[in-house]
Formats: sequence, structure tokens, C-alpha cells
Amino acid sequence: MITTDKLSCNILADLFVAHGIKDVVLSPGSRNSPLIVAIVRRNELRHHVVIDERSAAFIALGMAIESGCPVALVCTSGTALLNYAPAVAEAFYRGVPLIVISADRPEEWIDQDDSQTLWQQNALAPYVKRSCDLGAHLEFENGEWVCNRLINDALIEAVSGRKGPVHINVRLDAPLNRTAEFKAGDSRVIRQLTPPFELATPEARRLGEKLASPKRVLIIIGFHQPDERLNRALMKLSALPNVVVMTESIANLHSPSFISRIDMTLRILSANDWKKLQPDVVITAGGALVSRHVKEWIRSMDKGVEHWHVGLSHVTVDCFKHLSLRIEMEAAVFLRQLASALQIYKTPCDYSTEWHEIYRQATASHNEYVRNAPWCDLSAFSHIVSHIPRHWNLHLSNGTAVRYAQLMDCSHLHRSECNRGVSGIDGCTSTALGASVIYRGVTLLISGDMSFQYDIAALSSFLISPKFKMIVLCNSGGGIFRFISSTSDLPEMEEFLAVGTRLPLKDLAAGYGFAFFDASSSTELEKALAAFVAENRKPALLAVNTPPELSANVLKQYFERP
Amino acid sequence: MITTDKLSCNILADLFVAHGIKDVVLSPGSRNSPLIVAIVRRNELRHHVVIDERSAAFIALGMAIESGCPVALVCTSGTALLNYAPAVAEAFYRGVPLIVISADRPEEWIDQDDSQTLWQQNALAPYVKRSCDLGAHLEFENGEWVCNRLINDALIEAVSGRKGPVHINVRLDAPLNRTAEFKAGDSRVIRQLTPPFELATPEARRLGEKLASPKRVLIIIGFHQPDERLNRALMKLSALPNVVVMTESIANLHSPSFISRIDMTLRILSANDWKKLQPDVVITAGGALVSRHVKEWIRSMDKGVEHWHVGLSHVTVDCFKHLSLRIEMEAAVFLRQLASALQIYKTPCDYSTEWHEIYRQATASHNEYVRNAPWCDLSAFSHIVSHIPRHWNLHLSNGTAVRYAQLMDCSHLHRSECNRGVSGIDGCTSTALGASVIYRGVTLLISGDMSFQYDIAALSSFLISPKFKMIVLCNSGGGIFRFISSTSDLPEMEEFLAVGTRLPLKDLAAGYGFAFFDASSSTELEKALAAFVAENRKPALLAVNTPPELSANVLKQYFERP
Repeated sequence: MITTDKLSCNILADLFVAHGIKDVVLSPGSRNSPLIVAIVRRNELRHHVVIDERSAAFIALGMAIESGCPVALVCTSGTALLNYAPAVAEAFYRGVPLIVISADRPEEWIDQDDSQTLWQQNALAPYVKRSCDLGAHLEFENGEWVCNRLINDALIEAVSGRKGPVHINVRLDAPLNRTAEFKAGDSRVIRQLTPPFELATPEARRLGEKLASPKRVLIIIGFHQPDERLNRALMKLSALPNVVVMTESIANLHSPSFISRIDMTLRILSANDWKKLQPDVVITAGGALVSRHVKEWIRSMDKGVEHWHVGLSHVTVDCFKHLSLRIEMEAAVFLRQLASALQIYKTPCDYSTEWHEIYRQATASHNEYVRNAPWCDLSAFSHIVSHIPRHWNLHLSNGTAVRYAQLMDCSHLHRSECNRGVSGIDGCTSTALGASVIYRGVTLLISGDMSFQYDIAALSSFLISPKFKMIVLCNSGGGIFRFISSTSDLPEMEEFLAVGTRLPLKDLAAGYGFAFFDASSSTELEKALAAFVAENRKPALLAVNTPPELSANVLKQYFERP
Repeated sequence: MITTDKLSCNILADLFVAHGIKDVVLSPGSRNSPLIVAIVRRNELRHHVVIDERSAAFIALGMAIESGCPVALVCTSGTALLNYAPAVAEAFYRGVPLIVISADRPEEWIDQDDSQTLWQQNALAPYVKRSCDLGAHLEFENGEWVCNRLINDALIEAVSGRKGPVHINVRLDAPLNRTAEFKAGDSRVIRQLTPPFELATPEARRLGEKLASPKRVLIIIGFHQPDERLNRALMKLSALPNVVVMTESIANLHSPSFISRIDMTLRILSANDWKKLQPDVVITAGGALVSRHVKEWIRSMDKGVEHWHVGLSHVTVDCFKHLSLRIEMEAAVFLRQLASALQIYKTPCDYSTEWHEIYRQATASHNEYVRNAPWCDLSAFSHIVSHIPRHWNLHLSNGTAVRYAQLMDCSHLHRSECNRGVSGIDGCTSTALGASVIYRGVTLLISGDMSFQYDIAALSSFLISPKFKMIVLCNSGGGIFRFISSTSDLPEMEEFLAVGTRLPLKDLAAGYGFAFFDASSSTELEKALAAFVAENRKPALLAVNTPPELSANVLKQYFERP
């Protein structure tokens, strides 16, 4: 159809229709003329013109109360928006979903004495459930995506839980009157399911149908507390021929039928494999993913791939740019229901077999590479992980330690944790120490030296007991800067990024009452680790000294070798 | 027990225990010493001292991750709090409930160059689910109440839905080292139930047991959209001898077994009745109550009365100061479950009978008073309400119109609405107009002249159709100021408060295409109303002119007569 050339306005009109909005109350203006054009050219929407914005907002309120549906409001820039405030406050305290749309100037013109220009972003913040701001300049790689995501998020939020108003501020730059072709009905729609405790059976069946073989389903679980019910549900799902379950090392899920070493596995895929193994639906649960490989792969997939996320989210998280469904419920319950719903489908499918063959090959290749590797982080880490006793809790520091763990077989580990909420390097020792106060068994922290340096204050705590053990990988700090391509070739790398730390571990250990062990070769590590594990009268610290450049190269080579 | 004399610190420690917090990580300081005293003297809490606040917060995080329970953190004023930020951000994005407590100076000393004093309130706002601020000076009527409510609210919020950190900023004034007697375990605890869709049967039974006869249960429903299921559940409950159901006129609930004219009924209670009719448990659902009488009565009750509120709330709403339970689910479902759970109890009880006898007396007294009243707002309103056709939707303006409606028999009305989310006077005409666009039948607005004056812009709308009718009560504006005691005796009343409006209704009606009717006596009203109801080719406006002072006096007398 021919309509305004403003992408944000067209996506907005498209998503109004998709999210079931029927009535829009428009107050005329110049800045909002692209919004008006985009909306009134859609026959699916009823539009009502009301001049005074205060009255317009109360009229929209009356419509929403009577219809029980969300009603949209569109005004121009300036004080127009502020006139909406009384009705929006009424709607907020009454639980009525109004969708407030204000046109605005581009951000660069705010507070520059241009006429009808004031600070509109968040102007209604105390009385709306969510505010967002759509930029005037969307001609960049993620422009359409962020615009689409923010609108979907606001429209979902208005009708979730206790309903209420939301505000979308749409920045528009001149010229405002150009038109262009736009394909209506093509915008990506993100929907939300907020079942009570579990899905109603017909809903579970309907979702199951969408995933039935030969549809290819990839389930990926990020960080998660240990959860026996989730583990069981995933085991059932992984037995299906069209379903593959990938778990990160801090997902705390274990089964031989899971692909639990994601980075190790994805490494060996050929360009052809990437294409061939593309799923129809990706389902995620748990927290933010560590694996950059899996994120990049899924982001690169065709538009047709669907992403469903399961769990309670405070906002729409679209980490792969393919999100189509937010399922706001406990993952263990949803996946159990899904497993039941999928039992009836028997169409053969090779998807699982293909992945497990690749997993087998990747494991063999990994083992051979590690066996032949010189003394370095990778070989040291491999030895350490395989020798951690079964009932120890493992804590990993950001960022090198948790990335190495992703490559290893951690299936024997009781519990693994890492600060991956926001992946800070700053409090890994303290977090592990806090956990050790509560856990009855041993808590082991594996830390990089940089991360350890940050949180050295933790050593002075009286909470440290013989149940607390630390292994510090000493590779002169900042190993990750030597490894990642954004920094590894910079001339400033050694002096300003991968700076060595002054870390007198032996003296610190003596001063703070730790039993101290160290190792600078495979043979020494074997011996020191055995003694470290056996120590039970004192807290223990094992320093593992590895060559910095060599360690970085071995890891680089790990991912680059054919 | 002997502990700090700071009430906020003692309530905090008390509610930590009540809400199941087990571990508290304390960082020493001077300003927070009353908090430390209050907490460490409670044997139910495990306390851990960690000097550096950054480390302390990560240790608390580790404890919360391992234990699965909320963990509290206590620091002193100044930059101490800002050191919590990294761990709090990790907790927010990881869904871990940390209870962040910061000591602070009294508000009057912020930004006055006092040492260790900075703006702490909301300092962590983007990374906590809720922030609140406890004042340094609680020696006023509502001081203990607001402190208790804010702490309960924050502790509930931390573990609701997607869990996460909350921040309570505790302002404390010198001297900090005094002690006093405090009765531990006595603070009011507000609990929350967040059942999936409905309550588990044992939970419903447990709650039913608490309300079983001879316990006296008073259910009060505020504004609500029409809801057949809610109506049915309440009818079942109102059949029980120990349960009384009160509904406001905009609750849109109807049954002869409901006390639907609350203000009319409460008016006739004697001091002795107030006491005698006190319930054991008050249950509320729906929005904010119109009736000031019922709020004042329940607020004045003994400490032992419990208040349960049912419905989705965005915050803890404790309008009677007796809240003990937030039931976050649909009222219709909860009350249906409650009705079932209560069927098995057969102990006789007079509670319902007593109320219905009073209701009968109050109705007789009302009818007699109105029959004998001169021409005024009350008599006009009474005539109008009783002549509204069955299938019209009624909208009421704030504040006189909705208050008069509370006194009348509205049981024949299809649907009644009023802007009671925040009770603004500013958009009542527009709201009714918006509703009339959606509703197929007639929408009638009854408005005061002041309210009508505000929203005169609505008349120009093209949305006005013959389905839209208005009755304007012209009593020279601001009738409520002549009635309420806070303004009625002020010398400024007539000139600056109950100002007349220049409202040329006849000309406005002609200009905007309304059929116009008016009445200045009972006889005129009878005739005009019949013609107004019959009009179906044009929108219609009926002006009802009443004497201002006399109308105010008749209403005053209504409530004051014996």
C-alpha cells in the first residue's frame, strides 16, 4: 500500500492491527501527520478525530472501559501530550489499557528553543506501565528491529497482569509529507502467553502441533538453578527425533542426551552445516547465554525462524531478533506439558541424530586437541575440571573461567554458578564466599587473576572457612583481551588492556590463613591439585601459573583449526 | 526486649523475621548503628559482618543464590550504598531477592554539605523492583503505619513474580545510641497470596476456616465492570448468616441480598451499633471506595480486625490501615472458591440479619425524608435515577453526582460508571461520550455544572450522536464545597470556592445540535424528563436548576438528622 514513508509509523499501525486494537482517537497536528496517515489508511482500525487532547484522552478512556479493549491515542508534539495526563492518570489507577502515542521532534532538537518542543520522553512516567522512545533515524542495521521490539513490548505490557496505559513517543524528522510503498501485515508480531500456573490442555496441544515432527526444534537453556523437574522434562523432549536440547555449563542440567558443550560443538560446523541444522523453532529458558557462537548463529538465520522464550521476564528480551512468543510461566511446567503434547507425533526425523553425530565428532576432536596441547590455560582447566569431586559446588569468575568451562565435560559437577546476570568481573570471590556460608559441602571458585584482584577485600572476611577453596589462573591478567578480536591486535593491548596484576598470592594466602599450593606445569598441577583437594583443616588457594601469549594462542587455534 | 529506640529499625527487624529472612549481611558504620542493634538482638536472624560494602553485597548474593531465600544487606550512609550497585544489578538481572537497607540522614540535611551525605533515595532505582524511604520523624499519627506498610510492601515485592532486589532507605536522626523497650513480634504483617489461576483446594479450605461462622465477615466491593460470575459468587456468600455484602453503586452488582446503599445505611447507626456491627474480617475487591463513611468506620476499628484485599494491585494498598492479606487473583474466582469452602459451616449467626434489619430501617427513613424534601438536588436526583430506563448506561460526574447516586436505589440500572481511579472532575463528559461511541444503547451522563464546565470542549466532537444524553444539575457550581465541613464555613467559600459558572446551556445546546430541556421544579422535571427520555432523533441535554444553599442544607440534614 501507499502510505507515509516513516517506517516507525507504519510498524506502529501494523502492530496495532496485529495486537487487536480497534479504536484510535486522533488529535490533529503537523508533527503527527505521518502517524495519522499510517493509521487512517488501515481499514482494520476505526479512527475518531477529537481536537482537544484532554477531551480526546477521556473519550478514549470511555471507549476502553465500554469495549474492554485497549484504545490508542495519537497527538502531536509539545503541550499536546501533557493534556493527556489527567485521563492517563485515571486509566493507570483504574487499570485501563490506553496506548498513548505522541509525535516528537528528533532528539537533537529538544531544549533548543524550537517551537512546540519540550521534553516528552517519560513525561507520563509515573502514570504509565511503560514508556519508550522511537528514534527519528532508523536507517541503521538494528533500526527496524529496535522499533518493532519496543512497540511490541509496550503493546504487550498494556494488557499484562494489572492492565494500564503505556506511552510510545515517536520522533519524526522533516519532511513529514512523503509517501512510499509499505507492505502491510508483514511486521514481526511478538505475542505473550500468561497462563495461570500451567497451560490449558487445548493450548498445550495447539503449541505442540506447531512443533510436531518433522518440524525441527532447538531448545537452549542458559544459567539456571538446579531443577530436577526441568531436567526430567528436557530428558523427555530430547528423546524425540526432531528435538535437540542444548544446555550451558551453568544451566545445571545433566543428561547424555543433552548437547552440553555448545561452543565445542558449534566450532566444528561447516558453512553447509550451519544452514542444514537450522531449526524451525528455537525455545529458550533460563538466563542470558554465555555462548557467543550460538547467539551469532541464530541471529544470522532466515526471518522464518521462530523464537519462543519461557520464563518470567520484566521486559521483552529478544536476544536473537527472532522472538515471536513470550511464555510467562515456569520453564519446568511448560516443557513438561510440551513433552506430553508431543508424544503423539511419530513422523521420523533426523534432526536429533544429526546433532548427536556432530557432538560425537566434536568431542573426539576436542579430546585430541587438548591431549596434544602444551601447558596452558586450556590444558590446566581441562585437568582441573575433570578432577573436581562430585559434591563440590563450582563457582566461576567472569569472563575467561566461565568460557573455558563451556568447553569441558561438566556432567559430574554438583552445581555450577557464575555472575551472568550482568557478567561483572567485580564480585566473583565474594559471591562464591557467600554461597559457601550456606552450602554444607565444599565451594570451589575458579577465578582469573584479574577477577581475583578486584575482589581481594573478600579474603579478609571472617566468613572464610575450610569449606572454601579457590583456584586462581595466573596468566598475567586479562587473558580475554589477548583472545578477542576487538582488542587482540591493538598496539595498546599489553600496556593498557591485558595489564598484569601485582598479585603476591603466596603472601596473601599466608596472611589470611589459607593453605597455599601452586603449579607451573602439568606434573606440578597433578600433584598440587591432589593436595589441594585433600586439605580440610584450612581454606585453600591453588595458584596455577600459565604462559599468557601461548594460552591465548592455543585457545584461538582451538576455534580456528579445521 | 531492650533495643534501639528507633521505631523504623525495630519494625524492620520484626518484619524480616515475619517474612522469613534468615541471613543479614552487615557493614559497620555509625549512622546504621541503630539498624545493627535492632537486627543483631534478634536471635531469629543470622548476622554476618563484612566491612567492604561491594564485597558484602556479592556475599549476600551468593547466600541468596545458594539458599533460595531473600537475604538482607545493611550499610551506613554516603558512598556505602553506591558500592552495593554492582551486586544489586547482578541480582536484578538474575532474579535474586536482595533486601538492600541503607541508613541515611534526615531529609532536611541532604545536599547541605554535611559529611557522608548524598542523595540516596532511589539511588539504585534502575536495578531494584521497588525503592522506598522511611522518614526520620515518625512521631505523627500515621508515622508507624506508613513505616510498617512500606516495609511490608518492599518485602512482598522482592519475592513476587520475577524475584529481585528492593531498596529501603532508612533516615535516622541523632542521637543514634539510645535504647528502649520494644515488643518484638508485634508488628503488623501483610502477606500476599499469588495463586496461579485459582487457590489450591487446601488453601481455599484454610482461608474458609478462618472466616467460618460465628466469625463476622464484611465484604465491600468498589467500582467494577459488570461481572456476572462475581455477582453469582457474592450472592452465594450473602446467603450465609455470618457474611454481609456491601456494594457501591458503581460496583455494577445487583441482588436484594446486598447492601447496595452504603452511605444511606451507615448514616443511621448509633455509636453502639458501630461497635456491635464490627466484623472480624473485611474483604474488599474492586477499585477505590467512594463512601467516606465506610472508610472512616473501618479505620476506627480495633487492631484485631483483619482486612483482605482481592485483585491485581501494583502496590500494597492499605486503605483501612488493617490490611493483613493481599490476594493477587481475580475476585470472581476467589469469592466463588470462598463460597464453596464456607458451605460446610452451619454455626448460627445473626450478623447478616442484624445488617438487613438496619438496611430496612434506613431505606424507610430515606424514603420518608426524600418524600418530604423540598425541590433541591436530592429530590431531583431521586426522581431522575428512578426514571432511568433499564438498558441505559449511566455515567456520573465527580464529585456530587456520584455521591448522590450512592444514596439511591440503582438496582434497575444496566451499568454505572464514574472516573474514580483518581476522581478527577476534568473529563467526565468526554469519558461518557467515549463510552457512548462503543455502547449500542443510550449512554446518559449525570453531571454537576462545575464538572460540565471543565469539559465543554467535548460538545464540539463529531462523535456525539442521538445515543448520547446529558443531565446537568445546575446549582451554581461547586455544591460539594457548600456541603463538606472543611470548606462550608470559610468566608472565602462563595467567592473563591463554590463559584458559579457562566453556563449558557440553552445556547450551547442550540449551537451543538442538542435537543434542550429544562426544569426548575418537581412538576417541570417530571414533564421534561419524560420528553428527554423520549427524544431519539438528536442528542439531548436536560438542565435541572436547583437552589444552591437549600440543596446543600437538605443533604447536610440528611446525614445529621437522628
